[in-house]
Amino acid sequence: MVEVALAQSHMFRAYPALWERIVPHCRKKPYEKGTMVVHHGEEAGALWLVIGGWVKIFRQTPDGKEAILGLATDGDLFGEAAFFAHGSYPYHAEALTDAELIMIPAAVARDTIQGNSEFSRHVMSMLNERIAETQLKLDQMTTLSAVQRLGCFLLRLCRDDGAGRKTLRLPVEKHVLATYLGMKPETLSRSLQQLQQIQIEVKGQEMIIANVAALRDFVCNSCSESGMCQTEGEID
Amino acid sequence: MVEVALAQSHMFRAYPALWERIVPHCRKKPYEKGTMVVHHGEEAGALWLVIGGWVKIFRQTPDGKEAILGLATDGDLFGEAAFFAHGSYPYHAEALTDAELIMIPAAVARDTIQGNSEFSRHVMSMLNERIAETQLKLDQMTTLSAVQRLGCFLLRLCRDDGAGRKTLRLPVEKHVLATYLGMKPETLSRSLQQLQQIQIEVKGQEMIIANVAALRDFVCNSCSESGMCQTEGEID
Repeated sequence: MVEVALAQSHMFRAYPALWERIVPHCRKKPYEKGTMVVHHGEEAGALWLVIGGWVKIFRQTPDGKEAILGLATDGDLFGEAAFFAHGSYPYHAEALTDAELIMIPAAVARDTIQGNSEFSRHVMSMLNERIAETQLKLDQMTTLSAVQRLGCFLLRLCRDDGAGRKTLRLPVEKHVLATYLGMKPETLSRSLQQLQQIQIEVKGQEMIIANVAALRDFVCNSCSESGMCQTEGEID
Repeated sequence: MVEVALAQSHMFRAYPALWERIVPHCRKKPYEKGTMVVHHGEEAGALWLVIGGWVKIFRQTPDGKEAILGLATDGDLFGEAAFFAHGSYPYHAEALTDAELIMIPAAVARDTIQGNSEFSRHVMSMLNERIAETQLKLDQMTTLSAVQRLGCFLLRLCRDDGAGRKTLRLPVEKHVLATYLGMKPETLSRSLQQLQQIQIEVKGQEMIIANVAALRDFVCNSCSESGMCQTEGEID
């Protein structure tokens, strides 16, 4: 199970010799809903691959606010600080649902890039993708309206859900989604109602998208990644 | 001049043998205010180091909005996509003022990481810092108010300005600063007025900060990087 998940991951897919070498050092760990995986500021002892459930990546302010940097699920990686000597986690991670993770010890992660310049370049290009993703989210805070940001989130779920199906369930609770999208819970509620304009029916946690192309037009025309985003091309 | 700027840059400071090797391949280029340096989507032919003036790093949406990802100045680097084969620039860059840049050709940049695992790790850790910066800006869009985001920008300028002086000039025009901080121009105007509460006097482009500690308290208590940010510690 650890073998298969690592072999299929974006990080190791193209490097079978490498994952074979690291598999014996990795461990699968279950986390119950609500338990912490890592803490902000602690030494980055491992790199983490999510293989089941959802993990909230977040930070807190002294005056009690929370910012959600990411919602990680199947195939997502976090804890890249483990690649760097004396790196510390720049965020908390908490299991939002029961979750399963693979732990790749930091020493093992660092060993994979040591003296392997092809794999180093691969890791660098993954870090570069992470920069691009984060910058896009930052752009979207000013270029997209609240309902468009919600629409972009749904478009990404459509992609994961295969090409044909247009019925989705929200994978996380609404207050978590609101924080992740950088809006107040009441703004999310209003945005969910406004989706009707573009033929999306919301029934509790379930949403029926009648016309993905209409959703895409509604969102992507206001996005700085328009024309270069995978989400635009892959669904129909 | 190229030699000195490269030798002092964050990227090459610790690698004198490396910069000596690349200096002959680099070129200093002047840009007039308002001219484009690179275009979003074009092949990343070079890595760029700013050695004078200000450069706006930005993207545009099909419906005509602009998002500013960064304001680069002395010592700042952009165009990291040049490290990757077939990389393309994920943004436009435009000289906001007359500016001077050093151009490091992509082939030269890629050559520096090829077979040099120590320097590769250094570049990786710089990419990781870039992720952290961008994530922090994203956090701040929800955890800081408009006037606090402006305050954080001023704190960073204080740092560059040395320890004792508390008189600053806004380095860029107000409409640019507003877009960079993710707010409307009228919100920036209101925020500039509100700085009076924390003993900051604004006279046109000039601002007199009577008490940097008060500014810091006002901003950093609402920030998810509180306690781990360089800007907090370096000024007094």
